[in-house]
Amino acid sequence: MSATTMRAMILTGHGGPDRLEIRDDWPKPEPSLGEVRVRVGACGLNNTDVNTRSGWYSKSVKGPTASDATRDPDAKKADGAWGGALAFPRIQGADVVGTVEAIGEGVDAALHGQRVLIDPWLRDWSDPHRRTGCGYLGSERDGGYAEFMVVDHRNAHPVRSDLTDAELATFPTVCTTAENMLERARVAQGDTVLITGASGGVGSALIQLVNRRGAKAIAICSQAKMSRVASVGARATLARPLGDLARALRDAIGESSVSVVADVVGGSDFPALVDALAPGGRYVCSGAIAGPIVEFDLRTLYLRDLEFLGATVPPPEHFADVVRHIEKGEVRPLLAATFALGDFHEAQAAFIAKDHVGNIVVVP
Amino acid sequence: MSATTMRAMILTGHGGPDRLEIRDDWPKPEPSLGEVRVRVGACGLNNTDVNTRSGWYSKSVKGPTASDATRDPDAKKADGAWGGALAFPRIQGADVVGTVEAIGEGVDAALHGQRVLIDPWLRDWSDPHRRTGCGYLGSERDGGYAEFMVVDHRNAHPVRSDLTDAELATFPTVCTTAENMLERARVAQGDTVLITGASGGVGSALIQLVNRRGAKAIAICSQAKMSRVASVGARATLARPLGDLARALRDAIGESSVSVVADVVGGSDFPALVDALAPGGRYVCSGAIAGPIVEFDLRTLYLRDLEFLGATVPPPEHFADVVRHIEKGEVRPLLAATFALGDFHEAQAAFIAKDHVGNIVVVP
Repeated sequence: MSATTMRAMILTGHGGPDRLEIRDDWPKPEPSLGEVRVRVGACGLNNTDVNTRSGWYSKSVKGPTASDATRDPDAKKADGAWGGALAFPRIQGADVVGTVEAIGEGVDAALHGQRVLIDPWLRDWSDPHRRTGCGYLGSERDGGYAEFMVVDHRNAHPVRSDLTDAELATFPTVCTTAENMLERARVAQGDTVLITGASGGVGSALIQLVNRRGAKAIAICSQAKMSRVASVGARATLARPLGDLARALRDAIGESSVSVVADVVGGSDFPALVDALAPGGRYVCSGAIAGPIVEFDLRTLYLRDLEFLGATVPPPEHFADVVRHIEKGEVRPLLAATFALGDFHEAQAAFIAKDHVGNIVVVP
Repeated sequence: MSATTMRAMILTGHGGPDRLEIRDDWPKPEPSLGEVRVRVGACGLNNTDVNTRSGWYSKSVKGPTASDATRDPDAKKADGAWGGALAFPRIQGADVVGTVEAIGEGVDAALHGQRVLIDPWLRDWSDPHRRTGCGYLGSERDGGYAEFMVVDHRNAHPVRSDLTDAELATFPTVCTTAENMLERARVAQGDTVLITGASGGVGSALIQLVNRRGAKAIAICSQAKMSRVASVGARATLARPLGDLARALRDAIGESSVSVVADVVGGSDFPALVDALAPGGRYVCSGAIAGPIVEFDLRTLYLRDLEFLGATVPPPEHFADVVRHIEKGEVRPLLAATFALGDFHEAQAAFIAKDHVGNIVVVP
């Protein structure tokens, strides 16, 4: 490594973990107009890394960056990203905390030297609320599995916190996703929110963010993780496989239905989750790790006046909200394990094994 | 018939059309406290008559009136209605226009003699915005397939209009349903709304109500009905079977996606309809006549930030809105045919054959 190179984990193409290669001689990126360079303190792992690597975001899905142009059958490199243009080699890693150590032209000098948490949503800043044309850090541009990364200064949020870099790197994707789900579903005091995948990053963030809204969090997770998930703050914890969900809810909270389902799992439990919704209830989804294709009864949708809400691209102001929640200690980090960047394969294997509760991070 | 009896079409139980029997000696109902008796001028036909008769609203759906009590397996009579208690014999008929000819205790005498359109939603007036515990005229209480009917005075809306009774009887269910769908989906100027079943009652009401909101209506119907549907006011009309919907939309309106789908059909076209939604788009549903069980890709829901909205029980103020639209001529009646009540079987056979555009009504 020299002043112009760095250590980085390089994704060379779609495929298995063997497409990820560690390099010590990767060019250190330079900040352009409006950008900052961050010395990465820690970077958290997410499902989106694995999905992007494997090409799970198929073209047919027409993700947020999809346009007729990028969906052109000739645009081979588009396949498998957010329906958009994934170019290789790529440095993945969406959840970055670090220190601004260089600024591009047009950036306020006050940002230099600050400890920042990076909003992973890459926006068209001429129309930041637009949901189309967005990218994601580590997908449409290089992310944090490296010693340095470069990003628009509007993505770099100063953060004042006693937490370690590894702890702060647990937050960006999971908290932004969870907060967006709760905003979409208008969760407020009086709501009861059934949370799937509650031991995961988004799930455990949901529990905490439901609590800070004064609503009741009911967590679903495996038997082995129930006590750890309960300690995150769930009002009640239900074990998978679900069995008679109405009865389990009645036993746990005295009511057999909920007003909101916050789902990141999907799959074969989907019909039972929908059936748990009271009339007028809201189902909000930001993932489907157990399988995206589900059977849906339109009678249930319409006769019960339900709402099904997809939650992917949050409005830009959510990230500042999340930073405030962190600074106030309203969400606590759930750091399951820390790995060195050089041990990334081991880190991702642990992440995929899902034996942990909370988040796994790497440090350069 | 005498002063105490009337002609009525009696539904004797769940089953085929043979469960409907005309009677000339049925007891004329008396208005109770807060109720009015209406001399029926005309009554419109709806899918809900057929669905209720056949038991399509299965218990598993947990419709708006469902409660743990009514879903008790011992409550046999509950099966097949809105998940609630359907008692036989029953007089069906939800879309009633007529004249108030008797009033119960506690009803303003000014209502006597007025021409009224009946809101078919039966509410708990102590909590009229509650979506649970509602019934529907002709299901949870006797409706308009008779010479007389009785209803809460708050369901009887005076209407000032030059339209005939048969014309006015085309409106209640279809306009309330369509207006509720558009409200749920927040349809406004700038929206493009793809409408299925556009030749039917709700579909043709949707076209007119989309137009009065300043949005664009794109209608889907059979080839044979395209010109009639276009004359209702659709900006573009697409023929079933759908084929390449994106191309058809591009040819028709220059864009390959829409912001809203308003669906009463469901079935095998569902995936194509969903695929036509732009990111952030809304799908709203109030029926599924082509089949309620559909395949759903949760990736499409969440990666495109879509919303799926069920629309069954509208807030009570919608009916007054609809009456105003009618009085202003903002929606026009589409009276396909008028039958005598004694010819009800013929009327319902024509209704089910779906060769018509608009609505079919019976007159006592």
